[in-house]
Amino acid sequence: MSAPTRLSADEVNAALRDLNGWSLENGKLHRQFQFPSFIEAFGFMSSLALVAEAMGHHPEWFNVYNRVTIDLTTHDAGGITQKDLELAQRANQLAR
Amino acid sequence: MSAPTRLSADEVNAALRDLNGWSLENGKLHRQFQFPSFIEAFGFMSSLALVAEAMGHHPEWFNVYNRVTIDLTTHDAGGITQKDLELAQRANQLAR
Repeated sequence: MSAPTRLSADEVNAALRDLNGWSLENGKLHRQFQFPSFIEAFGFMSSLALVAEAMGHHPEWFNVYNRVTIDLTTHDAGGITQKDLELAQRANQLAR
Repeated sequence: MSAPTRLSADEVNAALRDLNGWSLENGKLHRQFQFPSFIEAFGFMSSLALVAEAMGHHPEWFNVYNRVTIDLTTHDAGGITQKDLELAQRANQLAR
């Protein structure tokens, strides 16, 4: 499996238009999710953990009570890749 | 259920002697755990999430791949309480 290719700034900005709630912060894809309670927040994390493990691509994420903050980057590529866009999209789908 | 009482600095320091790996950082109980992989790291988080929900006391925690960083404080009490010590102890037990 070849390493994913780092996307250009233009490619990232174009992709962000289709990624509701996500922005670029410190060179990473960033979004905060808020849920009714810890149960829903951790349920979301559990779902996304399965997706991440299956993709072989893991988030940096922070949780306190009903809030989950996610940052995505691809260390091997030194920036944002198609894998980060895909994980962000899956996160949005799971948070609905 | 009455709110837990904030512990004194002396009480916290005494308790830390029995809490392997934990320290006081920015007024919170703090520890980083490291696991062989994301699978074990998220398995640990899933276990501790059940404990936290049952206690009605939730951590602030951050995960990236095989590392989990936890900060504990009791917002209602404005500091560290017995609940934080208990959750820290349970985390240590689950991480073994």
